[in-house]
Amino acid sequence: MTRTFITSGPGLPNWSNPISHAVVVDKLCFVSGQLSVNEQGVYVPGSILEEATRAFQNVFAALTAAGFDKSEIAYIDIAFADLSQLGEVNALYMALFPEGKRPARTVYEAARLPFDGKVKIVATAAKD
Amino acid sequence: MTRTFITSGPGLPNWSNPISHAVVVDKLCFVSGQLSVNEQGVYVPGSILEEATRAFQNVFAALTAAGFDKSEIAYIDIAFADLSQLGEVNALYMALFPEGKRPARTVYEAARLPFDGKVKIVATAAKD
Amino acid sequence: MTRTFITSGPGLPNWSNPISHAVVVDKLCFVSGQLSVNEQGVYVPGSILEEATRAFQNVFAALTAAGFDKSEIAYIDIAFADLSQLGEVNALYMALFPEGKRPARTVYEAARLPFDGKVKIVATAAKD
Repeated sequence: MTRTFITSGPGLPNWSNPISHAVVVDKLCFVSGQLSVNEQGVYVPGSILEEATRAFQNVFAALTAAGFDKSEIAYIDIAFADLSQLGEVNALYMALFPEGKRPARTVYEAARLPFDGKVKIVATAAKD
Repeated sequence: MTRTFITSGPGLPNWSNPISHAVVVDKLCFVSGQLSVNEQGVYVPGSILEEATRAFQNVFAALTAAGFDKSEIAYIDIAFADLSQLGEVNALYMALFPEGKRPARTVYEAARLPFDGKVKIVATAAKD
Repeated sequence: MTRTFITSGPGLPNWSNPISHAVVVDKLCFVSGQLSVNEQGVYVPGSILEEATRAFQNVFAALTAAGFDKSEIAYIDIAFADLSQLGEVNALYMALFPEGKRPARTVYEAARLPFDGKVKIVATAAKD
């Protein structure tokens, strides 16, 4: 019986896009596509590892603001500008999510990402 | 305790694809990717604003047929053929969804969309 | 009150990616993007029909391991390496899902798929 729109919060990018960073409806939390964007809403280019780290930080900041934890992520969608960089993100990924409790996931290469970024991460979390 | 498949309805494209326009399971409504396609199932090329407007009309028609309202959209996925047209869709978007109550969202550029369309919009809605 | 991570099961690819093939939270099941990958985790190139058939087998194997049935799929996301092959997948699709009870769906062409595969299929299922 709750619907919450997360538009700001600690660590979350303050950008001009007409979105919520996350929307919570009861036990579900939909997190917007996150990129390597800092709290001022500015895209920060970097290596794939740097960009993915920052994008994950934004995903987790959105979850925290929404009252969710990364262990509750059920599904992750990762779009790459260059899919050959998947291996480097997998190394990061294995540190972020413990074996046996990893989200379902899909990955693909997009023709272009916002800001011409290297990686975009979308997450759906659910409380049981 | 309900599962409903929306295959037709007022304003919805009557096309030959083997899909439901929307599927409702209890409080969740999954809307199929909608494009600038008219009620006869014919793709209508236009400016990005025209195509996005028609695609949103189809999303909203699917929601209405499913017993949902656009205020219940939690998540939107927008694929562009040319991501540089995002700004024009954002202007439309701000008029469609009131500030502070906007869906979570992801945007990206696809290599190609059905009918070589300019924009495709997917939505997930949830009742609280 | 349940959260289950499906990492293996009859027919499921045994691959090295840091993912769950499916994650179940209560009545929802999120299935990872599936490709034409065999039980040994090896990509099997083939015609679009062959690749799509194997990808669907993997989706269904994940659902079965998760305690779900293909009739409970609410939403499917299909990415193509060549969208002109949609028609061939539609023919398969019509045989897999009975008219009037088909999932909501979105399709698009990605710039590149894992293994340079021809098709990737993601599914979300829900019990009512």
